[in-house]
Amino acid sequence: MTFWLLFCIFLAACLGAGVTGGLFAPGPWYRGLNKPWFTPPDWAFPVTWMVLYVCMAVAGARVGMLSGNGIAMAFWAFQIALNAVWSPVFFGLKNIRLGMAIVSALWLGVLCTMLAMWQIDWIAGLLFLPYLIWVTIAAALNAGVWRLNMDVARNPPPAPS
Amino acid sequence: MTFWLLFCIFLAACLGAGVTGGLFAPGPWYRGLNKPWFTPPDWAFPVTWMVLYVCMAVAGARVGMLSGNGIAMAFWAFQIALNAVWSPVFFGLKNIRLGMAIVSALWLGVLCTMLAMWQIDWIAGLLFLPYLIWVTIAAALNAGVWRLNMDVARNPPPAPS
Repeated sequence: MTFWLLFCIFLAACLGAGVTGGLFAPGPWYRGLNKPWFTPPDWAFPVTWMVLYVCMAVAGARVGMLSGNGIAMAFWAFQIALNAVWSPVFFGLKNIRLGMAIVSALWLGVLCTMLAMWQIDWIAGLLFLPYLIWVTIAAALNAGVWRLNMDVARNPPPAPS
Repeated sequence: MTFWLLFCIFLAACLGAGVTGGLFAPGPWYRGLNKPWFTPPDWAFPVTWMVLYVCMAVAGARVGMLSGNGIAMAFWAFQIALNAVWSPVFFGLKNIRLGMAIVSALWLGVLCTMLAMWQIDWIAGLLFLPYLIWVTIAAALNAGVWRLNMDVARNPPPAPS
Protein backbone atom coordinates (compact mmCIF):
# COMPACT_ATOMS: atom_id res chain seq x y z
CA MET A 1 0.00 0.00 0.00
CA THR A 2 2.64 2.51 1.09
CA PHE A 3 4.86 1.15 -1.67
CA TRP A 4 2.38 2.08 -4.39
CA LEU A 5 1.72 5.50 -2.92
CA LEU A 6 5.47 6.14 -2.84
CA PHE A 7 5.81 4.74 -6.36
CA CYS A 8 3.13 7.14 -7.64
CA ILE A 9 4.71 10.20 -6.00
CA PHE A 10 8.20 9.37 -7.27
CA LEU A 11 6.81 8.64 -10.75
CA ALA A 12 4.99 12.00 -10.66
CA ALA A 13 8.32 13.65 -9.78
CA CYS A 14 9.91 11.95 -12.82
CA LEU A 15 7.07 13.02 -15.10
CA GLY A 16 7.22 16.55 -13.68
CA ALA A 17 10.90 16.73 -14.56
CA GLY A 18 10.19 15.03 -17.88
CA VAL A 19 7.80 17.80 -18.91
CA THR A 20 10.84 19.85 -19.89
CA GLY A 21 12.06 17.05 -22.18
CA GLY A 22 8.76 17.25 -24.05
CA LEU A 23 8.64 21.03 -24.17
CA PHE A 24 12.29 21.58 -25.05
CA ALA A 25 12.60 18.78 -27.58
CA PRO A 26 15.09 18.15 -30.39
CA GLY A 27 14.21 20.55 -33.21
CA PRO A 28 15.80 21.98 -36.38
CA TRP A 29 18.71 23.48 -34.42
CA TYR A 30 19.68 20.09 -32.96
CA ARG A 31 19.14 18.30 -36.26
CA GLY A 32 21.48 20.75 -37.97
CA LEU A 33 24.37 19.95 -35.61
CA ASN A 34 27.15 17.48 -36.37
CA LYS A 35 26.62 14.49 -34.10
CA PRO A 36 28.86 11.63 -32.96
CA TRP A 37 28.41 8.16 -34.48
CA PHE A 38 26.76 6.73 -31.37
CA THR A 39 23.91 9.29 -31.29
CA PRO A 40 20.64 7.43 -30.53
CA PRO A 41 17.70 8.09 -32.89
CA ASP A 42 15.21 10.72 -31.66
CA TRP A 43 12.49 8.14 -30.90
CA ALA A 44 14.81 6.32 -28.47
CA PHE A 45 14.80 9.21 -26.00
CA PRO A 46 11.15 9.23 -24.81
CA VAL A 47 10.98 5.42 -24.89
CA THR A 48 14.13 5.03 -22.80
CA TRP A 49 13.09 7.74 -20.37
CA MET A 50 9.73 6.09 -19.67
CA VAL A 51 11.47 2.81 -18.79
CA LEU A 52 14.02 4.64 -16.65
CA TYR A 53 11.29 6.63 -14.86
CA VAL A 54 9.60 3.40 -13.80
CA CYS A 55 12.93 1.98 -12.55
CA MET A 56 13.70 5.21 -10.67
CA ALA A 57 10.24 5.29 -9.07
CA VAL A 58 10.41 1.63 -8.00
CA ALA A 59 13.87 2.21 -6.52
CA GLY A 60 12.71 5.35 -4.71
CA ALA A 61 9.63 3.61 -3.31
CA ARG A 62 11.65 0.61 -2.07
CA VAL A 63 14.19 2.78 -0.29
CA GLY A 64 11.50 5.19 0.92
CA MET A 65 10.09 2.43 3.11
CA LEU A 66 13.41 1.64 4.81
CA SER A 67 14.98 3.39 7.77
CA GLY A 68 18.36 5.04 7.36
CA ASN A 69 17.33 6.23 3.88
CA GLY A 70 18.11 9.93 4.34
CA ILE A 71 21.21 10.21 2.16
CA ALA A 72 19.67 8.11 -0.62
CA MET A 73 16.45 10.16 -0.55
CA ALA A 74 18.37 13.45 -0.58
CA PHE A 75 20.41 12.34 -3.61
CA TRP A 76 17.24 11.12 -5.33
CA ALA A 77 15.84 14.65 -5.00
CA PHE A 78 19.13 16.18 -6.18
CA GLN A 79 19.27 14.09 -9.35
CA ILE A 80 15.64 14.77 -10.34
CA ALA A 81 16.17 18.53 -10.00
CA LEU A 82 19.17 18.42 -12.36
CA ASN A 83 17.33 16.01 -14.64
CA ALA A 84 14.65 18.69 -15.13
CA VAL A 85 17.24 21.35 -15.96
CA TRP A 86 19.25 19.76 -18.78
CA SER A 87 16.68 19.96 -21.60
CA PRO A 88 15.82 23.65 -21.10
CA VAL A 89 19.53 24.51 -21.09
CA PHE A 90 20.58 22.33 -24.03
CA PHE A 91 17.54 22.55 -26.31
CA GLY A 92 16.00 25.75 -24.93
CA LEU A 93 19.03 28.00 -24.47
CA LYS A 94 21.03 25.97 -27.03
CA ASN A 95 23.94 26.28 -24.62
CA ILE A 96 26.11 23.21 -25.28
CA ARG A 97 28.79 24.07 -22.72
CA LEU A 98 26.40 24.80 -19.87
CA GLY A 99 24.54 21.63 -20.84
CA MET A 100 27.82 19.76 -20.36
CA ALA A 101 28.20 21.20 -16.86
CA ILE A 102 24.66 20.16 -15.95
CA VAL A 103 24.83 16.66 -17.41
CA SER A 104 28.14 16.15 -15.55
CA ALA A 105 26.54 17.17 -12.25
CA LEU A 106 23.56 14.94 -13.09
CA TRP A 107 25.89 12.01 -13.78
CA LEU A 108 27.52 12.51 -10.39
CA GLY A 109 24.14 12.80 -8.71
CA VAL A 110 22.90 9.56 -10.30
CA LEU A 111 26.08 7.77 -9.26
CA CYS A 112 25.75 8.99 -5.67
CA THR A 113 22.06 8.03 -5.57
CA MET A 114 22.90 4.55 -6.86
CA LEU A 115 25.69 4.02 -4.33
CA ALA A 116 23.62 5.35 -1.42
CA MET A 117 20.71 3.10 -2.38
CA TRP A 118 22.88 0.06 -2.91
CA GLN A 119 24.00 0.23 0.71
CA ILE A 120 20.51 -0.23 2.07
CA ASP A 121 18.79 -2.14 -0.77
CA TRP A 122 20.87 -3.62 -3.57
CA ILE A 123 17.86 -4.12 -5.84
CA ALA A 124 17.14 -0.39 -5.70
CA GLY A 125 20.79 0.28 -6.47
CA LEU A 126 20.64 -2.06 -9.44
CA LEU A 127 17.51 -0.31 -10.71
CA PHE A 128 19.57 2.88 -11.00
CA LEU A 129 22.27 1.23 -13.12
CA PRO A 130 20.44 1.59 -16.49
CA TYR A 131 19.85 5.25 -15.64
CA LEU A 132 23.56 5.77 -14.95
CA ILE A 133 24.42 4.10 -18.27
CA TRP A 134 21.94 6.28 -20.15
CA VAL A 135 23.22 9.50 -18.54
CA THR A 136 26.74 8.37 -19.45
CA ILE A 137 25.60 8.12 -23.08
CA ALA A 138 23.85 11.50 -22.80
CA ALA A 139 27.01 13.07 -21.38
CA ALA A 140 29.14 11.52 -24.14
CA LEU A 141 26.63 12.81 -26.69
CA ASN A 142 26.77 16.30 -25.21
CA ALA A 143 30.59 16.16 -25.24
CA GLY A 144 30.62 14.84 -28.82
CA VAL A 145 28.26 17.58 -30.02
CA TRP A 146 30.51 20.14 -28.34
CA ARG A 147 33.65 18.75 -30.00
CA LEU A 148 32.01 18.55 -33.44
CA ASN A 149 30.39 22.00 -33.29
CA MET A 150 33.00 24.20 -31.65
CA ASP A 151 31.73 27.40 -33.25
CA VAL A 152 28.13 26.81 -32.19
CA ALA A 153 29.26 25.94 -28.65
CA ARG A 154 31.37 29.08 -28.44
CA ASN A 155 28.54 31.35 -29.55
CA PRO A 156 25.25 30.25 -28.02
CA PRO A 157 22.34 32.48 -29.03
CA PRO A 158 21.37 35.12 -26.45
CA ALA A 159 19.02 33.91 -23.72
CA PRO A 160 15.31 34.57 -24.35
CA SER A 161 14.23 37.99 -23.18
CA MET B 1 27.22 15.19 11.07
CA THR B 2 24.58 13.35 9.02
CA PHE B 3 22.39 16.41 9.39
CA TRP B 4 24.92 18.66 7.69
CA LEU B 5 25.57 16.17 4.90
CA LEU B 6 21.83 15.92 4.30
CA PHE B 7 21.52 19.70 4.50
CA CYS B 8 24.21 20.14 1.83
CA ILE B 9 22.65 17.61 -0.56
CA PHE B 10 19.17 19.11 -0.21
CA LEU B 11 20.58 22.61 -0.62
CA ALA B 12 22.42 21.45 -3.76
CA ALA B 13 19.10 20.11 -5.07
CA CYS B 14 17.52 23.53 -4.46
CA LEU B 15 20.39 25.34 -6.17
CA GLY B 16 20.25 22.87 -9.07
CA ALA B 17 16.58 23.66 -9.55
CA GLY B 18 17.31 27.35 -9.01
CA VAL B 19 19.73 27.42 -11.93
CA THR B 20 16.72 27.72 -14.21
CA GLY B 21 15.50 30.76 -12.30
CA GLY B 22 18.80 32.47 -13.05
CA LEU B 23 18.96 31.36 -16.69
CA PHE B 24 15.33 32.05 -17.52
CA ALA B 25 15.02 35.33 -15.68
CA PRO B 26 12.55 38.22 -16.01
CA GLY B 27 13.47 40.11 -19.20
CA PRO B 28 11.92 42.68 -21.56
CA TRP B 29 9.00 40.35 -22.39
CA TYR B 30 8.00 40.08 -18.73
CA ARG B 31 8.55 43.76 -18.07
CA GLY B 32 6.23 44.61 -20.96
CA LEU B 33 3.31 42.65 -19.48
CA ASN B 34 0.54 44.16 -17.40
CA LYS B 35 1.03 43.00 -13.85
CA PRO B 36 -1.25 42.85 -10.80
CA TRP B 37 -0.82 45.40 -7.99
CA PHE B 38 0.82 42.88 -5.63
CA THR B 39 3.68 41.97 -7.99
CA PRO B 40 6.92 41.85 -5.96
CA PRO B 41 9.89 43.84 -7.30
CA ASP B 42 12.39 41.81 -9.38
CA TRP B 43 15.08 41.90 -6.66
CA ALA B 44 12.75 40.20 -4.18
CA PHE B 45 12.74 36.93 -6.13
CA PRO B 46 16.38 35.78 -5.72
CA VAL B 47 16.53 37.07 -2.12
CA THR B 48 13.36 35.24 -1.13
CA TRP B 49 14.39 32.05 -2.92
CA MET B 50 17.72 31.90 -1.09
CA VAL B 51 15.96 32.14 2.28
CA LEU B 52 13.40 29.53 1.20
CA TYR B 53 16.13 27.19 -0.08
CA VAL B 54 17.79 27.20 3.34
CA CYS B 55 14.43 26.51 5.05
CA MET B 56 13.67 23.69 2.59
CA ALA B 57 17.12 22.13 3.06
CA VAL B 58 16.91 22.30 6.86
CA ALA B 59 13.44 20.73 6.76
CA GLY B 60 14.61 18.00 4.38
CA ALA B 61 17.65 17.21 6.51
CA ARG B 62 15.61 17.02 9.71
CA VAL B 63 13.07 14.65 8.22
CA GLY B 64 15.74 12.70 6.33
CA MET B 65 17.12 11.52 9.67
CA LEU B 66 13.79 10.19 10.94
CA SER B 67 12.21 6.82 10.21
CA GLY B 68 8.84 6.71 8.47
CA ASN B 69 9.90 9.62 6.28
CA GLY B 70 9.13 7.99 2.89
CA ILE B 71 6.07 9.99 1.88
CA ALA B 72 7.61 13.27 3.01
CA MET B 73 10.85 12.54 1.12
CA ALA B 74 8.95 11.52 -2.03
CA PHE B 75 6.94 14.76 -1.96
CA TRP B 76 10.12 16.76 -1.32
CA ALA B 77 11.53 15.30 -4.56
CA PHE B 78 8.27 15.96 -6.41
CA GLN B 79 8.15 19.63 -5.47
CA ILE B 80 11.79 20.33 -6.37
CA ALA B 81 11.28 18.81 -9.84
CA LEU B 82 8.31 21.09 -10.51
CA ASN B 83 10.15 24.00 -8.95
CA ALA B 84 12.84 23.60 -11.63
CA VAL B 85 10.28 23.55 -14.43
CA TRP B 86 8.28 26.73 -13.85
CA SER B 87 10.89 29.34 -14.90
CA PRO B 88 11.77 27.67 -18.23
CA VAL B 89 8.06 27.40 -19.09
CA PHE B 90 7.02 30.89 -17.98
CA PHE B 91 10.09 32.96 -18.89
CA GLY B 92 11.64 30.62 -21.47
CA LEU B 93 8.62 29.48 -23.48
CA LYS B 94 6.62 32.58 -22.39
CA ASN B 95 3.69 30.21 -21.94
CA ILE B 96 1.51 31.83 -19.26
CA ARG B 97 -1.19 29.15 -19.29
CA LEU B 98 1.18 26.20 -19.04
CA GLY B 99 3.03 28.13 -16.32
CA MET B 100 -0.27 28.30 -14.42
CA ALA B 101 -0.67 24.51 -14.67
CA ILE B 102 2.85 23.97 -13.36
CA VAL B 103 2.67 26.47 -10.52
CA SER B 104 -0.66 24.90 -9.47
CA ALA B 105 0.92 21.43 -9.37
CA LEU B 106 3.90 22.92 -7.50
CA TRP B 107 1.56 24.53 -4.97
CA LEU B 108 -0.12 21.17 -4.38
CA GLY B 109 3.27 19.47 -4.08
CA VAL B 110 4.50 22.00 -1.51
CA LEU B 111 1.29 21.62 0.50
CA CYS B 112 1.60 17.83 0.50
CA THR B 113 5.28 18.02 1.48
CA MET B 114 4.44 20.36 4.34
CA LEU B 115 1.61 18.16 5.63
CA ALA B 116 3.66 14.95 5.34
CA MET B 117 6.58 16.57 7.18
CA TRP B 118 4.39 18.06 9.87
CA GLN B 119 3.22 14.59 10.87
CA ILE B 120 6.71 13.43 11.77
CA ASP B 121 8.45 16.72 12.67
CA TRP B 122 6.37 19.85 13.16
CA ILE B 123 9.40 22.13 12.95
CA ALA B 124 10.15 20.81 9.46
CA GLY B 125 6.51 21.35 8.52
CA LEU B 126 6.67 24.90 9.81
CA LEU B 127 9.82 25.53 7.77
CA PHE B 128 7.80 24.79 4.64
CA LEU B 129 5.09 27.35 5.49
CA PRO B 130 6.95 30.41 4.10
CA TYR B 131 7.56 28.41 0.90
CA LEU B 132 3.84 27.63 0.60
CA ILE B 133 3.01 31.30 1.11
CA TRP B 134 5.53 32.36 -1.54
CA VAL B 135 4.24 29.83 -4.09
CA THR B 136 0.72 31.08 -3.34
CA ILE B 137 1.90 34.58 -4.24
CA ALA B 138 3.66 33.23 -7.36
CA ALA B 139 0.49 31.39 -8.42
CA ALA B 140 -1.61 34.51 -7.85
CA LEU B 141 0.93 36.51 -9.88
CA ASN B 142 0.78 33.98 -12.71
CA ALA B 143 -3.02 34.08 -12.62
CA GLY B 144 -3.03 37.89 -12.52
CA VAL B 145 -0.64 38.13 -15.46
CA TRP B 146 -2.88 35.73 -17.38
CA ARG B 147 -6.01 37.78 -16.62
CA LEU B 148 -4.35 41.09 -17.52
CA ASN B 149 -2.72 39.83 -20.73
CA MET B 150 -5.32 37.58 -22.31
CA ASP B 151 -4.01 38.07 -25.85
CA VAL B 152 -0.43 37.23 -24.91
CA ALA B 153 -1.58 34.17 -22.97
CA ARG B 154 -3.69 32.99 -25.89
CA ASN B 155 -0.82 33.29 -28.36
CA PRO B 156 2.46 32.18 -26.78
CA PRO B 157 5.40 32.42 -29.19
CA PRO B 158 6.37 29.12 -30.88
CA ALA B 159 8.68 26.89 -28.82
CA PRO B 160 12.41 27.23 -29.59
CA SER B 161 13.48 25.04 -32.45
